[in-house]
Amino acid sequence: MPSESSPLRVGICGLGTVARGVIRVLQENSEIIGQRAGRPIVVTEVASRSARPEIDLAGAGFSTDVSSLPDHSGIDVLVELIGGEDTALSLIETALRAGKPVVTANKAVLALHGHALLKLAGEQGVSLGCEGAVAGGIPVIGALQRGLAGNEVERIAGIINGTSNYILTAMARSGQSFETALADAQRLGYAEADPTFDVEGVDAAHKLTILAALAFGMDHRFSEIYIEGISGVTLEDLEYAGQLGYRIKHLGIARRGATGVEIRVHPTLVPESHLLAHVDGVMNAVLVNGNAAGDTLYYGAGAGELPSASAVVADLVDLARGTALLPAASRAVDISVIPIERCVSAHYLRIPSLDRPGVFARVATLLSEHGISIESAIQRAQAIHTESKEHWVPIVIVTQPVVEGQVAEAVAAVQALPEVVGQIVRIRVEDLDDQ
Amino acid sequence: MPSESSPLRVGICGLGTVARGVIRVLQENSEIIGQRAGRPIVVTEVASRSARPEIDLAGAGFSTDVSSLPDHSGIDVLVELIGGEDTALSLIETALRAGKPVVTANKAVLALHGHALLKLAGEQGVSLGCEGAVAGGIPVIGALQRGLAGNEVERIAGIINGTSNYILTAMARSGQSFETALADAQRLGYAEADPTFDVEGVDAAHKLTILAALAFGMDHRFSEIYIEGISGVTLEDLEYAGQLGYRIKHLGIARRGATGVEIRVHPTLVPESHLLAHVDGVMNAVLVNGNAAGDTLYYGAGAGELPSASAVVADLVDLARGTALLPAASRAVDISVIPIERCVSAHYLRIPSLDRPGVFARVATLLSEHGISIESAIQRAQAIHTESKEHWVPIVIVTQPVVEGQVAEAVAAVQALPEVVGQIVRIRVEDLDDQ
Repeated sequence: MPSESSPLRVGICGLGTVARGVIRVLQENSEIIGQRAGRPIVVTEVASRSARPEIDLAGAGFSTDVSSLPDHSGIDVLVELIGGEDTALSLIETALRAGKPVVTANKAVLALHGHALLKLAGEQGVSLGCEGAVAGGIPVIGALQRGLAGNEVERIAGIINGTSNYILTAMARSGQSFETALADAQRLGYAEADPTFDVEGVDAAHKLTILAALAFGMDHRFSEIYIEGISGVTLEDLEYAGQLGYRIKHLGIARRGATGVEIRVHPTLVPESHLLAHVDGVMNAVLVNGNAAGDTLYYGAGAGELPSASAVVADLVDLARGTALLPAASRAVDISVIPIERCVSAHYLRIPSLDRPGVFARVATLLSEHGISIESAIQRAQAIHTESKEHWVPIVIVTQPVVEGQVAEAVAAVQALPEVVGQIVRIRVEDLDDQ
Repeated sequence: MPSESSPLRVGICGLGTVARGVIRVLQENSEIIGQRAGRPIVVTEVASRSARPEIDLAGAGFSTDVSSLPDHSGIDVLVELIGGEDTALSLIETALRAGKPVVTANKAVLALHGHALLKLAGEQGVSLGCEGAVAGGIPVIGALQRGLAGNEVERIAGIINGTSNYILTAMARSGQSFETALADAQRLGYAEADPTFDVEGVDAAHKLTILAALAFGMDHRFSEIYIEGISGVTLEDLEYAGQLGYRIKHLGIARRGATGVEIRVHPTLVPESHLLAHVDGVMNAVLVNGNAAGDTLYYGAGAGELPSASAVVADLVDLARGTALLPAASRAVDISVIPIERCVSAHYLRIPSLDRPGVFARVATLLSEHGISIESAIQRAQAIHTESKEHWVPIVIVTQPVVEGQVAEAVAAVQALPEVVGQIVRIRVEDLDDQ
C-alpha cells in the first residue's frame, strides 16, 4: 500500500461522457481535491475499447485492452465506467479479486450482481463505491450509508429517471403528447435513440434496487420489482390529475410494509403541495423517510458529464482519505418483496362512461362492494361517444388506500358495466405524508 | 484504544431535548446501528447540571458534575449537547486535549470558536463531528465534506432557521401579522420565549458560518457576516412579492465573488418557480452549487428531538466504523469576506409615493442615474395618504443585480423626493439560477 501522502493512482475503464468528466474534474479541481483528500488523486491509466481519443489524458497511459487494467500494478483503484453488463462485471470482479477497490457508476451491473460483488469486496477487504450509479451528482448513496446511518428507513420515493421526468414535465407544461415530448428529449440528448430502458422504467428500477438494498440492508432483488413506465400516461390524465390537485411523476418507491417491503416503479399522482411535485425537467430527487430524521429530500442533476463525475470523484476522495466504507460483514437481512397485488396505494381511476342517469352511482356502489372508498371525484368534460353517438363523460375517481388486488377486481367489475365505453385507466396515488 | 468489535462508549453532556433523542435513537435502533457501525454504540455516562431526570438511561452512569465527563476513562467519545457557550467550549477543549473525539450540535460554539477547536482536534488527531449543528436531521455537513468533495463550491443558499420560515409561511398563507405568527410559533414550541436569536437572524448566521467554513475551506468568520432578521417583513411586502412571482424566505447565502466571499443572512425574494420557494413551515433546505455537481438541494426537519439526534448518531456511527473525518492538516484558505456594501444582488424596493403625474418617471430616472436598471415594476394598490389627504400609491420595483452601495445611494436619493411619503423598503432578490 502506498503511504498516506503518495498519490492515489486511478485507472479508468471506459472513455464515455462520465469518464471524460472524471478526468476533467480531477484536473480542474485538483487543488481542492488534494486538500480534502490529504493527497493527490491522479489518473495513471485509461483503457477503452475504442481507439485513443483526442482528449488530454494528462500523462496517463492508454490501452485498448480493457482487460489489462483491473490488475495493472500502476493503479490503486479501478473506476469502471465502461457501461454494459458482462465485460463490466468481469472487470469489477477481476479488480476486487486483485484486492483493489472499485468505483463504478454502473447501475445495471449493481442491480443484477450487486450482492455478489459486495460479498466479494467484503471478503477482499476493499470498498465498492457506487455514488455515481444513482441520481448522478446527488449524494444520496452517502446520505443512506452515513448521514442517515442511525435510522431505520421506512420509505424511499424518488424521481430517479431524468428522461421520464423531462417528458412528463414537457407534457404537463406545454401540452405536448408523449411522442412529441420524447422526440424533443431525444433531440436534446435527454433520451437515447432506443428509449425503452428509460420510458419503460427499467433504468429507474435498477436504481431503486440499489437504493432499497442500502436502505433496508437487503440483497439486490431487481427481478422482483414491479416495473411500469410512462409510455401509457396521457395528456388527459395529466389534466384531470391537475384538477384534483396532483401532478403525475414517475416514482421509484420502496416502502417497509407489514410483511416485507414494497418495491415498485410506476407513474404516480403526487400532491401538488409536496416538494416532489415541483421537481421538473431532467432533475432528480429522492425522498427518504427515516424513523429518526423523518422526511429528508435530496435534489439535483441525475445525469450528465460533470454531475456524475462529481459522484465518482467523491468516492475517490473517500478512498484517498482512507474513509471509504467497507461492505458490511453481516449477511443481508432476510426480507420479502411484497408482490404488487398485495401492495397498498390509493388509485386514480378514469372510467370512460356514457352520460346516463345513475352511472356514477352504479360505479360507486360496485367500488364500495369491493371495499373501496372514494376520496374525491370529478365528472366534468363531455363529448359525444363516436360509436354509440350518446354523450359520454369520463368519471374520474381517486380512491382511498387499498390493496392492489382488490382494486384490480373492482376495476374489472366496473369495466364490465354496459355504460363503460372504453378501457379504464388506473394510476397509483401517493400522499407522501411523513410516515 | 478499544478493539474494533468492542462497543463505542459514549458520554453525553446535557440532558435536553436532543440528548434525550440521542439516548432514544441509540436504544430503539440499536440493532441496525450496530450492524452499520460494525459494533455496538452504548451510552455509558451522562452528565447534566440539573438533577437526575426521570428517564431511562439504560444503565449509563449519571453525574451532575459535567466537568468530570470529558476525560472520564469510561468514555471513548464526548457528545456535547449542553448548549450555551463558555462551559460547552471548555468541555469540548478538555475532551480534545484528552485525545477524545467530540460530537457536538452546538452551532454557537462552532461559529465563534470552530477554527481553534478544529486546529486542536487536528493536533490531537481526533475528529470533531458537527452534523447536528446545522439543519437538524439533514445530512448537509456530510454532503459538503464527502458527497461534494470533488467540487469547488460556488454558492450556498439555505433556509436554515425553522422559526423564521414558520413565521414567514404563516404570514404568507394565512395573512397573519409578524406578531401573531410569532405568538403562534411560541405557543407551538417553534420559537423561544425570547425569540431574538431566531427572528433577528443570529442563529442562521451561526449555521451559515459553519457551512461557509466547510464549503470554502476558510476559518469561522461569524463576526464578519451581514445579519438581518425577519422582524421587518410586512404582509404588504409578501403580497407584492407574490404579485411579482416571488416568495419571501429568510436565506443564509455564502457566495464566491471576484474578491472574496459574500456571507449574508437576510429576508430574500425567491422566484416562485424555485424549489426553495416551496420549503414551508419549520422545514429547512440548503441549496449548494458546486462547479461539478451543479445545484443540489438538501431538505428536511431542521430541528427537533429525533431529527437532531439522527445527525448526532450519524457522527457516532462514523466514529465507531473508524471512518470519521479528521480535521484537515492544511491551514484555512485565506479568503476575504466581502463587506455588504460591495455585495451584488437584485433588490425589491417599495416606495410609498403620492399619486402625482410623473412620479414613477422621476423615480426611474433617479435609479438610472445611479446605474440601476429596472427588471419589473408594479403600481397597483391605492390609498389616501393620511397626512396629505392626497391619493398615494406604493411604487414597487425589482432592480437588476447591482452593487449594494449603489442601491443604498439611489434609495437615499429617491427617499428625498417630495412625493415619497414614507420609508422606502428594500429587500434583496436572488434568482438562484444554477451558476
